[in-house]
Amino acid sequence: MTLWISTRSKPFDINIAIYYYPQSMPELRYNLLTRDWIIIATDRAKRPEDFAGKPAPVADASAANCPFCPGREAKTPPEIFAFRDPGTQPNTPGWQVRVTRNAFPALAPEGELTKTKTPAGFFKMNGVGAHEVIIETPEHDKVIATMEQAQVDKIFLAYKERFSSLARDPRFQSVILFKNHGRGAGTSLSHPHSQIIALPIVPDVLRNRLNTCREHTAETKCCLYCDLIKMEKSEGERIIEESANFVVFVPFAARMPFEMWVMPKFHNPNFQEITTEQCLELAAIVKKTLEKLYRAVGNPSFNYAIYSAPVKEHDVSYFHWNLKIFPRVAMAAGFEVGSGVMINTVVPEMAAKYLREA
Amino acid sequence: MTLWISTRSKPFDINIAIYYYPQSMPELRYNLLTRDWIIIATDRAKRPEDFAGKPAPVADASAANCPFCPGREAKTPPEIFAFRDPGTQPNTPGWQVRVTRNAFPALAPEGELTKTKTPAGFFKMNGVGAHEVIIETPEHDKVIATMEQAQVDKIFLAYKERFSSLARDPRFQSVILFKNHGRGAGTSLSHPHSQIIALPIVPDVLRNRLNTCREHTAETKCCLYCDLIKMEKSEGERIIEESANFVVFVPFAARMPFEMWVMPKFHNPNFQEITTEQCLELAAIVKKTLEKLYRAVGNPSFNYAIYSAPVKEHDVSYFHWNLKIFPRVAMAAGFEVGSGVMINTVVPEMAAKYLREA
Repeated sequence: MTLWISTRSKPFDINIAIYYYPQSMPELRYNLLTRDWIIIATDRAKRPEDFAGKPAPVADASAANCPFCPGREAKTPPEIFAFRDPGTQPNTPGWQVRVTRNAFPALAPEGELTKTKTPAGFFKMNGVGAHEVIIETPEHDKVIATMEQAQVDKIFLAYKERFSSLARDPRFQSVILFKNHGRGAGTSLSHPHSQIIALPIVPDVLRNRLNTCREHTAETKCCLYCDLIKMEKSEGERIIEESANFVVFVPFAARMPFEMWVMPKFHNPNFQEITTEQCLELAAIVKKTLEKLYRAVGNPSFNYAIYSAPVKEHDVSYFHWNLKIFPRVAMAAGFEVGSGVMINTVVPEMAAKYLREA
Repeated sequence: MTLWISTRSKPFDINIAIYYYPQSMPELRYNLLTRDWIIIATDRAKRPEDFAGKPAPVADASAANCPFCPGREAKTPPEIFAFRDPGTQPNTPGWQVRVTRNAFPALAPEGELTKTKTPAGFFKMNGVGAHEVIIETPEHDKVIATMEQAQVDKIFLAYKERFSSLARDPRFQSVILFKNHGRGAGTSLSHPHSQIIALPIVPDVLRNRLNTCREHTAETKCCLYCDLIKMEKSEGERIIEESANFVVFVPFAARMPFEMWVMPKFHNPNFQEITTEQCLELAAIVKKTLEKLYRAVGNPSFNYAIYSAPVKEHDVSYFHWNLKIFPRVAMAAGFEVGSGVMINTVVPEMAAKYLREA
């Protein structure tokens, strides 16, 4: 094989210098929580409005065969919890918010947890856990951004109820509440719903966050999240919404375009300890925030998830529960998959301004 | 607001028991490297053949305006390295593999690295780093699975050359080589290309892997990857390919369907120290593996990335470089984003059997 290798190009060829010198210097920002550096790629950056008008494609836009629509209660596992019109019976229409087990659970709700080792030395457990679906409304085509506030209130009260209940189950170590909106966020059913998974383990990602928070508290005697709230409020330019007990911002080192954190201003590690009043205030600020996202970016696919301390650990006072919103307008490619370093193509301050003004 | 709450359903209603008892128990598998538990969701599982026949959609299937096609060399930054036909000049046709700087770099290749603190206490750095594109072939429509082996050899020799060169640059701490194939893997240009990014930091994900490997070596005096290779070979059922110096397998705790690890059987932390002979053997086994994926799943979107030790650290003898292939046939949804725990809907042994037999 004969191979010829070209010499390096001259680095200052005037005609091509444009490629070497980005107009604005890209920036690396340190995420104090994940301890990752995030690349804010200002040169390949998009303007926030470049993302607008690509509404979330859905898998089954039609209500015709939707198992979550009223009248098809028999198509789902029986209801675990519901807010209902007076006098209506479980597993019949008349519900306002309805919780059932997931018909295709990632984890099985019954059985004993057993950990085993394969002959070669790999570890496995049987998958005991809970996997529930929170059907958010009887109306197939509504989204939280376009719902009545009273309906959103019920969704969040259902979150509180089911989260607390699963947190008490002695088999579970952690509870993850999340929502997938739009196909780009992993939804297979378009009827608005959230999900909740209870795990017999503490995920390593949560364990790492806990360690980071514990170390910060040991060093500074302060909560890392409380400090981040203070820092975000002092800079101000990434704040989106604020109410008596909550604040919403695009974090300084946002991992993706339009990422938003909904932070309780009161310090508490456990979501399940939220009061009814706080829960209704949370419902209001999340709805306002999702309305802004809906208007600014045009109903994009998004996920949100509630991060709460492990439910069976007592020494977690250094943690601070929160809800994070992840719009799925960009795709993690090989670099992000390989390095864990995210490239965010929208400058957080610009994303925040755009969302605030929506 | 009057809310009615339904009572819990009876847990053993015979008509609905099907929902409670998955036919096969889901399984949690411990990933010794990431220290994550992976959920193998056997009940919501898909058969491997369910993924077949959804070829990677591409952004710009047409060669008409492709900046990577021969004759359009002026549309890219000037070439840094190329394998060329004898007598041809840089930045003209006649190249077989061509490396240029990325026209839209995530990081800027010039400048001094400076770390600053904002008044509120956030950290940032200016984004000094390298971002190069390795154009794998002059032929717009080829993919590695369908190329001549001699062409794949040149791609991998270019990997070795550019990786080694960037590893020597005193400003960089780590080098990430990766490939995005198909829109589902984040490609915007369909002409086959890989990318290489050199970073002024060590990504936290890599640091965590290093820590895991260091602890394993401290405890056992063995390399974790060498042990994983032994364990995989002893169980055997997840092995896909093997040659004198390399082995390919679907790992026990695969994070996604059809994930494959290409592992050197010789222990070395640094990809840049690969010999030309080993590099050609790597090119051969990666091509064979991608052919299997192409035939089995039908040209799916995928990423691969080379994981190598930080390039400026001396005490990394416990690490073991490797190449990991991530087919992008499933979507990370809110649960995965929120918890870091992956749900893999294809049992690794079934994925391996299906790939082996393709």
